[in-house]
Amino acid sequence: MATLRIKFLATSIQMQMHLLVFLPESIARPNANGSSRLKVLWLLHDQGGDCSDWTRLSMVEHDAQRADIALVMPDMAHSMYMNMAHGGYPYFTYLSEDLPRHLRNLVQVLSDRREDNFVAGVGAGGYGALKWMLRSPQMFAACASLSGDVDRVAALQHKQAAGTLTDDWIAAFGDTTRLAGSPDDNLQLARQRAATGEAPAPAIHLAFSRHDESCQRDAQAARNLQQLGFVVREHEEATRLGWPYWSERIGDFIAKTVAAER
Amino acid sequence: MATLRIKFLATSIQMQMHLLVFLPESIARPNANGSSRLKVLWLLHDQGGDCSDWTRLSMVEHDAQRADIALVMPDMAHSMYMNMAHGGYPYFTYLSEDLPRHLRNLVQVLSDRREDNFVAGVGAGGYGALKWMLRSPQMFAACASLSGDVDRVAALQHKQAAGTLTDDWIAAFGDTTRLAGSPDDNLQLARQRAATGEAPAPAIHLAFSRHDESCQRDAQAARNLQQLGFVVREHEEATRLGWPYWSERIGDFIAKTVAAER
Amino acid sequence: MATLRIKFLATSIQMQMHLLVFLPESIARPNANGSSRLKVLWLLHDQGGDCSDWTRLSMVEHDAQRADIALVMPDMAHSMYMNMAHGGYPYFTYLSEDLPRHLRNLVQVLSDRREDNFVAGVGAGGYGALKWMLRSPQMFAACASLSGDVDRVAALQHKQAAGTLTDDWIAAFGDTTRLAGSPDDNLQLARQRAATGEAPAPAIHLAFSRHDESCQRDAQAARNLQQLGFVVREHEEATRLGWPYWSERIGDFIAKTVAAER
Amino acid sequence: MATLRIKFLATSIQMQMHLLVFLPESIARPNANGSSRLKVLWLLHDQGGDCSDWTRLSMVEHDAQRADIALVMPDMAHSMYMNMAHGGYPYFTYLSEDLPRHLRNLVQVLSDRREDNFVAGVGAGGYGALKWMLRSPQMFAACASLSGDVDRVAALQHKQAAGTLTDDWIAAFGDTTRLAGSPDDNLQLARQRAATGEAPAPAIHLAFSRHDESCQRDAQAARNLQQLGFVVREHEEATRLGWPYWSERIGDFIAKTVAAER
Repeated sequence: MATLRIKFLATSIQMQMHLLVFLPESIARPNANGSSRLKVLWLLHDQGGDCSDWTRLSMVEHDAQRADIALVMPDMAHSMYMNMAHGGYPYFTYLSEDLPRHLRNLVQVLSDRREDNFVAGVGAGGYGALKWMLRSPQMFAACASLSGDVDRVAALQHKQAAGTLTDDWIAAFGDTTRLAGSPDDNLQLARQRAATGEAPAPAIHLAFSRHDESCQRDAQAARNLQQLGFVVREHEEATRLGWPYWSERIGDFIAKTVAAER
Repeated sequence: MATLRIKFLATSIQMQMHLLVFLPESIARPNANGSSRLKVLWLLHDQGGDCSDWTRLSMVEHDAQRADIALVMPDMAHSMYMNMAHGGYPYFTYLSEDLPRHLRNLVQVLSDRREDNFVAGVGAGGYGALKWMLRSPQMFAACASLSGDVDRVAALQHKQAAGTLTDDWIAAFGDTTRLAGSPDDNLQLARQRAATGEAPAPAIHLAFSRHDESCQRDAQAARNLQQLGFVVREHEEATRLGWPYWSERIGDFIAKTVAAER
Repeated sequence: MATLRIKFLATSIQMQMHLLVFLPESIARPNANGSSRLKVLWLLHDQGGDCSDWTRLSMVEHDAQRADIALVMPDMAHSMYMNMAHGGYPYFTYLSEDLPRHLRNLVQVLSDRREDNFVAGVGAGGYGALKWMLRSPQMFAACASLSGDVDRVAALQHKQAAGTLTDDWIAAFGDTTRLAGSPDDNLQLARQRAATGEAPAPAIHLAFSRHDESCQRDAQAARNLQQLGFVVREHEEATRLGWPYWSERIGDFIAKTVAAER
Repeated sequence: MATLRIKFLATSIQMQMHLLVFLPESIARPNANGSSRLKVLWLLHDQGGDCSDWTRLSMVEHDAQRADIALVMPDMAHSMYMNMAHGGYPYFTYLSEDLPRHLRNLVQVLSDRREDNFVAGVGAGGYGALKWMLRSPQMFAACASLSGDVDRVAALQHKQAAGTLTDDWIAAFGDTTRLAGSPDDNLQLARQRAATGEAPAPAIHLAFSRHDESCQRDAQAARNLQQLGFVVREHEEATRLGWPYWSERIGDFIAKTVAAER
């Protein structure tokens, strides 16, 4: 078992970026040929949080230990998983290009095979997880979005109409004109993916609570993705919300999907 | 002796902000009345760095231990010590208002008397140190700027003319029109301060190397500040540059100014 | 909300000791007179673990946030919560004397009133929690031991008989001759406490799983403590074990005991 | 550039051990064949310190960046670089066997060639650095001991005679009877090494200050090692002591030996 707290100068973004890596006990075992690699779950935090959220607020390290998988938890600051509309910081490029390349160069026990890689996130991280998988379908075997408000075009429109649009949303997304139809619009990405005629991306797990403000938008997004031909595994929670719910959901994703795959 | 790594939710900026605090050995000594407090040096990092730079790259912790003073090293991300022109994050408000109040509420051994508080920084942190002192002259007994390029109006004009203006400068400062004459223009702050007729702010320590790109601008700023009536202690270095130079300079500031005051 | 990672030179043990402190969101609220203090739960890790175990492996930070209490999680290395029989390191003296004094000197928002302080631990930390409370009944309103194997005399005898006594136990406890009847023998401490005729110590919460190797010893210890007049709240778990069980138990202790008290 | 804070369960010692790794900027550069590896300086802290001492108290990270080498800084607690005489913790086995194997398995950019590996330490870490090199001469190209009091048999005898033998020395070394002539006696290791008739181990750098209590013992050890045929590079400092001296010495070792080798 090992935990690594890594800080490195990311060339794409010219900032020092932080991440946490959890490696299960099996890395300490002698290995005949040195070639076996660990399955990896990339775990994305919500806006307002940081790379330590998942380990501090859920049982995911315990679940990962039991399932013998690695966790990679990047710090994405207040980026909303965007190349910022204002301020010029290409956070998503860092996440999807810099980070996997540098991390695998650094830590050799992580598998880079598609069937061994999974991505999940909570809140803005759930939006980012789906986006990353739709943009890089060759990289992930499955993705999970927890209370992700994955259709950020609809979310932005709602906030504009309700007068609740905050500075961090504007800094990240700009306005709906800019976002809709762009490579940061998950439904647009899904339509493009469906139109290729290739085998659709792997199952999309969407979990949300009826107490989430974004509940109905996520339910609608689930229907839209299904109509496009995606396999959507939906979990709608009636009573619970927040970390107790998300902790249970990530445990379920690890046990039934991440550990089961292969 | 103690070191504290603190993360707290800053209300001004609605983000979790990090800082490092170093406390010297004297805090472990029993204290008759519990009322004695430590002198504090607030230490600001450069753009591209973080709150760990000063301890990792200089001998400042050793110097602070010997001088029996506390160090407070906030993380200011890529803010350039600005309330960002783009993106809406009021980093400077966090630094100058939230941070002192919350930290002193949390850690009671830090003195809040003016004669016990000092601020210094390197690069963008040197610009920030002078700005903070000029805006809050009742808070600090002295400030030091190391290779600080303290006249950011001149710096911005230079970068625009030279075609070297980067996104992080635009995100922080906007353009010269916005910056010049604003409360983020150190020379304007100095003129306002001089015009009050009150006793001028305490001595301003400016150190820079002839190898700094900003060398001539800092030399000019020193002359301008002197003409306004400020006591400027200037150190111009002919041969060295970077951390070996800055480490020596901060050691000198601690030994001759911070430790000597009272 | 704030988290502090503190390292300080402990005078009792002449080592730099680590601890984690969690403070809930209420510390950020302005406070009329500055006098209100937070309830504190002191949380002790198991042998082989460290001060980060509780936040990483359970939901306790989430529970503490909801209940508006502080958590203090000291690092006790491989001490078994003993002044080591071999090697001369007085870890328990550090925990019970140095730590509270220094921490309260440093972080002023922690209440030092008995009715606001609670101690809990898992494994060796559960043994340590009960010992600390029995030795310092004026300090804590309640204690909880999770799978604590609290009667270490019986545990040591069992290990000697079974031939499973390991070096770390010998280094910490020496042998049964040394331990039995000493101030590290919880049942002896309980008998002494009962014999004073003073009001007995507050309720002792003992939780253990039938899957714990120490299950029957903890059940017996519960009966012994009850016979001595202590109020023992026992929770015996039939099916679960490990962190999912402990996480639920600490959440229950926080919700029903720590938050309820006053 | 990257820094890694690693915690892993060390099988030899059955404890979670910490270390810091610094990697210079070159790791971010694209590499044609991926095969080039970094030179490594293993840096050992003094008794009473921890793995963060070198980065916090010296300029070594700056020096390593300039010389383009990696630093590995393990945490050795209060072990004195011994398999403890009392308490049963095999810290030196962890350092010399577990750590290199696990770390190179984890972080692939570190060279494992002899000419690329160097070891240095301060105080007890200086003793440990020489011991590690004498026990594993196939692993290191050079070693440096700073104020290392490298002949711990002489040191122990002195402390016994002077009545200044402290618990931590007894816990680590036991008594002189146990230590003299054992594999923890550096001069005995040197005699054995010399007797093999093989090429002697590489140059031993010994630096000490006349202000060190152990000054004369280190000077005597230097003479003894030279008589055994070792190349000893000695640096005796007349005026300075402590971290300013050690920081300068490690910078010199990096610039003239680590960077020069090949």
